[in-house]
Amino acid sequence: MDKILRINMGPGAKPSYTTEPVGEFAGLGGRALTSTIIAKQVPPTCHALGEDNKLVIAPGLLGGTTGAMSGRVSVGCKSPLTGGIKEANAGGQPAQMIARLGYAAIVIEGKPSDDTLYRVRISADGVEILPDPDLKMKGNYDVVEKMKQAYGDKIACISIGQAGEMKLASSTVAFTDMEQRPARHAARGGVGAVMGSKGVKVIVIDDAGASMRSPKDPDKFKAANRAFVDGLKKHPVTGEGLPAYGTNVLTNVVNEAGGYPTYNFKTGRFKGASAISGEAQAEMMKARGGQPTHGCHRGCVIRCSGIWHDKDGHYLTKQPEYETVWAHGGNCGIDDLDVIAMLDRLDDDYGIDTIEMGATIGVAMDAGLAEFGDGQAAINLVHEVGKGTPLGRVLGSGAAVTGKVFGVERVPVVKNQALPAYDPRAVQGIGVTYATSTMGADHTAGYSVTANILGVGGTVDPLAPAGQVELSRNLQYATAAIDSTGMCLFIAFAVLDQPETFQALIDMINAFHGLELTADDVTALGKQVTKTERDFNAAAGFTNKDDRLPDYFKKEALAPHNVTFAVTDEELDQVFADL
Amino acid sequence: MDKILRINMGPGAKPSYTTEPVGEFAGLGGRALTSTIIAKQVPPTCHALGEDNKLVIAPGLLGGTTGAMSGRVSVGCKSPLTGGIKEANAGGQPAQMIARLGYAAIVIEGKPSDDTLYRVRISADGVEILPDPDLKMKGNYDVVEKMKQAYGDKIACISIGQAGEMKLASSTVAFTDMEQRPARHAARGGVGAVMGSKGVKVIVIDDAGASMRSPKDPDKFKAANRAFVDGLKKHPVTGEGLPAYGTNVLTNVVNEAGGYPTYNFKTGRFKGASAISGEAQAEMMKARGGQPTHGCHRGCVIRCSGIWHDKDGHYLTKQPEYETVWAHGGNCGIDDLDVIAMLDRLDDDYGIDTIEMGATIGVAMDAGLAEFGDGQAAINLVHEVGKGTPLGRVLGSGAAVTGKVFGVERVPVVKNQALPAYDPRAVQGIGVTYATSTMGADHTAGYSVTANILGVGGTVDPLAPAGQVELSRNLQYATAAIDSTGMCLFIAFAVLDQPETFQALIDMINAFHGLELTADDVTALGKQVTKTERDFNAAAGFTNKDDRLPDYFKKEALAPHNVTFAVTDEELDQVFADL
Repeated sequence: MDKILRINMGPGAKPSYTTEPVGEFAGLGGRALTSTIIAKQVPPTCHALGEDNKLVIAPGLLGGTTGAMSGRVSVGCKSPLTGGIKEANAGGQPAQMIARLGYAAIVIEGKPSDDTLYRVRISADGVEILPDPDLKMKGNYDVVEKMKQAYGDKIACISIGQAGEMKLASSTVAFTDMEQRPARHAARGGVGAVMGSKGVKVIVIDDAGASMRSPKDPDKFKAANRAFVDGLKKHPVTGEGLPAYGTNVLTNVVNEAGGYPTYNFKTGRFKGASAISGEAQAEMMKARGGQPTHGCHRGCVIRCSGIWHDKDGHYLTKQPEYETVWAHGGNCGIDDLDVIAMLDRLDDDYGIDTIEMGATIGVAMDAGLAEFGDGQAAINLVHEVGKGTPLGRVLGSGAAVTGKVFGVERVPVVKNQALPAYDPRAVQGIGVTYATSTMGADHTAGYSVTANILGVGGTVDPLAPAGQVELSRNLQYATAAIDSTGMCLFIAFAVLDQPETFQALIDMINAFHGLELTADDVTALGKQVTKTERDFNAAAGFTNKDDRLPDYFKKEALAPHNVTFAVTDEELDQVFADL
Repeated sequence: MDKILRINMGPGAKPSYTTEPVGEFAGLGGRALTSTIIAKQVPPTCHALGEDNKLVIAPGLLGGTTGAMSGRVSVGCKSPLTGGIKEANAGGQPAQMIARLGYAAIVIEGKPSDDTLYRVRISADGVEILPDPDLKMKGNYDVVEKMKQAYGDKIACISIGQAGEMKLASSTVAFTDMEQRPARHAARGGVGAVMGSKGVKVIVIDDAGASMRSPKDPDKFKAANRAFVDGLKKHPVTGEGLPAYGTNVLTNVVNEAGGYPTYNFKTGRFKGASAISGEAQAEMMKARGGQPTHGCHRGCVIRCSGIWHDKDGHYLTKQPEYETVWAHGGNCGIDDLDVIAMLDRLDDDYGIDTIEMGATIGVAMDAGLAEFGDGQAAINLVHEVGKGTPLGRVLGSGAAVTGKVFGVERVPVVKNQALPAYDPRAVQGIGVTYATSTMGADHTAGYSVTANILGVGGTVDPLAPAGQVELSRNLQYATAAIDSTGMCLFIAFAVLDQPETFQALIDMINAFHGLELTADDVTALGKQVTKTERDFNAAAGFTNKDDRLPDYFKKEALAPHNVTFAVTDEELDQVFADL
């Protein structure tokens, strides 16, 4: 993992590639690496779909190792949705395979002068970049099927669907899972559009002949990994809740807390919540022969993923995540898991961010394009995106553009990116993260739901402003560090609550790389990554006015707690005052 | 003109109005008044379509007087297009009548809680605000016809078409001309959407019983007015070029200079230019019984307006302005004046900014939605807007949104507002104005075409950066002042070249108001207005990154001069360094 692979897509005669030593970026992985490359090599004011933008795909510091949970992959670029820096990450198999092939990052740069579509194959033998017009306007499932036919079933794929090809701002980059299904997505911020603008439809990773990366101190690494896994297994969230019900375990919890955004963020409780809860979902999956417990990549011990079967017992899609169930469920007033699963499948196939799409449909429903609760109408709207009709292109451009085009004032976005599944009025800590994250509204950037709702990592009253700034700040720094390790963010539950599990994580990194990092070094890394991203955004034109929730969260009280978002602008400006 | 009329549209039980003394705003008119009210009373970060935004309509300092050229009206608000402050102005009859009724400004504020549509009638007897569902989705021509039927033919109307009702960001506010046709538009920045968001379809002005405003020193005013008119008549632009051919006299001039943006800003000369020139237009109008020379409001002595007849000799629309002829002509590769006149009529009726619409169609043509040069296709696209189809709503949202939705990288906008009819590479002074104006790309904000191309107010080489910053700065200050007088901006040609005409203007203001202003005071006013607007924009989140042209103007050389925009970012940052 000491090389960077650069794929230059033009506008020269034909695409080419080079490899170079990791050089100045040595010691960085995942989000730290993608954000640093973007900050150093992409002009902040460039057009996100232009030749000056780059798409960086990077495993984490422990990618390609036997370390548990280390299979996340980061995708970085300037975002066509937010206009700022973007890191979106995903599970799936490619990260491990890229790392084993020795690449710290794949950087796709330039832009072809025409609209030829390419496939790229990366193996131990080198890189092939071939025009492949047959892939035009194919969905992710078809693309992967074609690649398996061409290259066999040991590969992994990184691909875009129709949405990415159309350069829509809600488009994703899909990563295949252990079953070679394109079900894991770097979803937010329109990273798929950047890949599409560069004419790359799919990157096939073939790690035949490559071997597992070796730790500097194998014994210490093995011991640390074991302690780490033990820690995950004993924590109630990572050892029980997530394995049993997946992320959708949260539906009943958040709904009960009155923070479940319903009908496009109009109320905090959904009467159909129990019908679409993780508990209901697990029952249905068991009955139909799906899998409620499953890992999204090899090496996962939490296994919060799952496989959804349709009524006839056939595979339809992965188990929809909590965010997806909410976005297409409560937010649109839909209480039918089969409808939600179909929407998940369509989003994955067309390559659309489920959160942005669900929020957009909510806005579209407020605009009168469909009734809240009408599942078939929601399905039809997503098909519009896949077909690329004018309406579909609007919806695929995200909630902010949809609000503009249809004259809707209540649009739940920050930095143009849609708010996820926690109402910031009833979970004020996550509101601070939504407002101030470098990424636009993003729950994973600083998941204050922990102390606000779950009682993990302390307790902070979710309904009042006190303590939220500090909570969000600390979580944002910690998250930036975790996103750099290649570890799944869900390790945070155990790491926050159990000092020995945090230490085991640091021991793993140290043993693998021959380092002597301390907890403070990890925090410092997270802080540095955040600063790099904030500086990029400032150079792109962001100010503290962009670190705000839409006005209506401060004006409209949310039932059942009758609360408004009460963290002041001045407090929000303090989140990163120490940078 | 010592009162402000406030019309509160909700969300209370029903709309209401109040009048108040002009108070702290005394001495301000036109743009100075609209921008000051917006800056003081509208939160810069509010939603432009929300209840906190206000729409301010104000005659100028000399509105309602016998002073020549004093019939302009300013419309101010926070812009739904740019997100910054907006002043768009227009000719027509309402300004004089509002002034005679004693109002320095009409402020429409609040927002109804439902989508009831209202008509407002303002007369010497007071104000009526009535629901009028019959006006729903009517075009401006129909609306005016209905108001004439209701209130007779002495009224003037201020109205929005379908685009404003749909709250589209390219929608205008229409003002009736001397023939009571809704042909004069405060067009830029989506001011019509703000009126639409407040549920006001039309404001009928009836000044029966009101009298002309009286100067403090009638003799001095009369003498100054005479000197002023003499100055306008003797200048070659205001005394010959504009009266003979209207603003479209510029087509041949700018095309010859190689600065005529053609095919969505791809080249600087259009082979069809002479067919759509002012000269050709005047010939056609004479042959068909239209009027190539005509004033847009009573008191105009330049008379650059005109009346366009169709092939059968019937009224179709006003004489399309240079900007309109360019936007729908050269920019879309269309060289047929009948097609352009039809597009002008449709834009006026639906209530769409012709510049934004033409630029948007250029982007749509690059997106493959129509072929450059296909006039019928362009007409069809404008009809989509009027019908409010999803495609039409995208197009009606302007060039920036259209570029996003269709994944087009080359989009000619600054602060999301489309560039007008002078390529900034071949007319670099206007490029400085486009980049730095508080309004987004706007030629009228600092019309450097004067010294760059027309040899008015000095000479500055249009192809090189030297001198452009100072030229644009001075013109931007002067323009802000003129926009505050209620005078037509075209007086600037004579005022810039003839010191005695500038003095006559100042004498008119002094004689009317009993003041002793000097030329320096006028400049200071312009500077103060600009500062007020810049401060609002900064508080809304604008930075110097927003004071830039799109990258491609710096990268792609423009034929025939093979030039790129060469004013540096550092120089652009100097434009308002003295504020």
